[in-house]
Amino acid sequence: MASISLWFVQNGSAIFESIGILAFALSGLLEAARKKLDLIGMAMVASLAAFGGGTLRDILLDRRPFFWVQNEQWVWVIIGLCLLALVFLRNRHLALTERAMQWPDAVGLGIFTAGGTQVALNANMPPLVAVIMGTITAVFGGVIRDIVVNEIPKAFSDHQPYAAIALVGGWIVVFGQWLHWGEFLAVGLSASAIVLVRICAMVFGWRLPVWKV
Amino acid sequence: MASISLWFVQNGSAIFESIGILAFALSGLLEAARKKLDLIGMAMVASLAAFGGGTLRDILLDRRPFFWVQNEQWVWVIIGLCLLALVFLRNRHLALTERAMQWPDAVGLGIFTAGGTQVALNANMPPLVAVIMGTITAVFGGVIRDIVVNEIPKAFSDHQPYAAIALVGGWIVVFGQWLHWGEFLAVGLSASAIVLVRICAMVFGWRLPVWKV
Amino acid sequence: MASISLWFVQNGSAIFESIGILAFALSGLLEAARKKLDLIGMAMVASLAAFGGGTLRDILLDRRPFFWVQNEQWVWVIIGLCLLALVFLRNRHLALTERAMQWPDAVGLGIFTAGGTQVALNANMPPLVAVIMGTITAVFGGVIRDIVVNEIPKAFSDHQPYAAIALVGGWIVVFGQWLHWGEFLAVGLSASAIVLVRICAMVFGWRLPVWKV
Repeated sequence: MASISLWFVQNGSAIFESIGILAFALSGLLEAARKKLDLIGMAMVASLAAFGGGTLRDILLDRRPFFWVQNEQWVWVIIGLCLLALVFLRNRHLALTERAMQWPDAVGLGIFTAGGTQVALNANMPPLVAVIMGTITAVFGGVIRDIVVNEIPKAFSDHQPYAAIALVGGWIVVFGQWLHWGEFLAVGLSASAIVLVRICAMVFGWRLPVWKV
Repeated sequence: MASISLWFVQNGSAIFESIGILAFALSGLLEAARKKLDLIGMAMVASLAAFGGGTLRDILLDRRPFFWVQNEQWVWVIIGLCLLALVFLRNRHLALTERAMQWPDAVGLGIFTAGGTQVALNANMPPLVAVIMGTITAVFGGVIRDIVVNEIPKAFSDHQPYAAIALVGGWIVVFGQWLHWGEFLAVGLSASAIVLVRICAMVFGWRLPVWKV
Repeated sequence: MASISLWFVQNGSAIFESIGILAFALSGLLEAARKKLDLIGMAMVASLAAFGGGTLRDILLDRRPFFWVQNEQWVWVIIGLCLLALVFLRNRHLALTERAMQWPDAVGLGIFTAGGTQVALNANMPPLVAVIMGTITAVFGGVIRDIVVNEIPKAFSDHQPYAAIALVGGWIVVFGQWLHWGEFLAVGLSASAIVLVRICAMVFGWRLPVWKV
């Protein structure tokens, strides 16, 4: 069990983060394309969406080096993704609906929240703070993406459960640690639960309460 | 005198910051409600308004842990505040005027500026930088709040003296240190002066000069 | 050569950064004036434009103290600049065109990119990350400036090569280090090349490819 945990810390979290990074980068790319940004703007917004949340978490936790500094090949992946988008998507009429952007986002939400919570627990944060750090990891990439393209962050304004699911689902990682499940199981269960609930929220159109003024 | 200073460093600054945090959280809550954000959006904007300035100051000063990490009960206070707002304010027609938001803001402005300047002085910052750090502590919670809800920060654009009062009033903490007043007196006087002048500015409608282009 | 490098590290980078700071502060000042911000708003936006990129780079690299903390006279320069703008520019009808703002920006772009890349290399960042850090140094002051005044950052949206030139030109510093040119030559050549190409891009109206959706 210890060796699985060790392997997970060394490899698993990178694999998990990779899937999330691709999902968030894509969401940034689509958002930038909808706003008619140029190639650099696309790459920047994609990078901010992909790395912004984790970088903010690492600044808050005072962790270095950042994921994208240690794994700089990811920067090339983002650049390649943007070039691919330019070349292959140029003349196709993609229906870039809100809905299409929500699917990769749901996957990223689960993976980043669970992974980020685990990272914060490993940095000896108290449980509530760790869950908040996990939520920041998952949500603030998108928040920064929306701020940069001059929108009110969707996570705060679209009345769908998004950060709310992260804030609840992150506790599974905490409980997993309390019950000695091992990191792989705890993070995997938490991520899966968040993705599942998020997809339910999308499919069934769940809504958050709003303050009626 | 030394023991009072010691007590203040250990308790007083936390008490001061608490009053300011409540004031700023409320301003964020009202702003989020005016923008029809959902429950999570309200909690996020309230948290950014309350903790954003101090967190930015601590990042700039490389201080850890943050206030809201060390005193995580405050996160619960913000969550409770938002739930209270949802439950009790749901159907009342509150006149959420700009003016109503300025009163808790004035209190927070004084408390955060004076406290933040003291924190920066304790971190051996030079006087001018300490006053700027105090001003950042007080003003950038609101700046981040306004940026997130897609407004030009009121602190920069409403032509009222706000950050200007902080930038002048913070020097009282510096002078207090030079004159060996003790932290409690220096911070208290600075905070009181800033709140008082800010209220005067509100009541008498003082305006800052604008560049006529 | 070693003593020139040493001198450069101690003095040259400060001189280079000074020219860039003035240029970026001016761009922030003009932007704030166009948005009718007040005196404090002008000073804040000018400061964010001038120090924002370098401060963000230093936060990412975990470097302290910041340039504007160590050289606090620069804060006075910004304040003086704003007062001068208020006094001397009050009644003149300046054509604050986009074009006029691009000239000081071009100088700052070259100087900050090259200097920032060198700083990151000195902090043992890998080449690609160092070039990105240099680009962040140069571009994110303007990005923060535009976000604060509620615009989509020009660097991402105006379809002109700006960050793109920085991302290419920063490699000259990296190559200079590989070829043992000495920092002064490498940074100087890189900065000059970036300024020159940026001016060409402005004069000849070069455009970046945009994703046609």
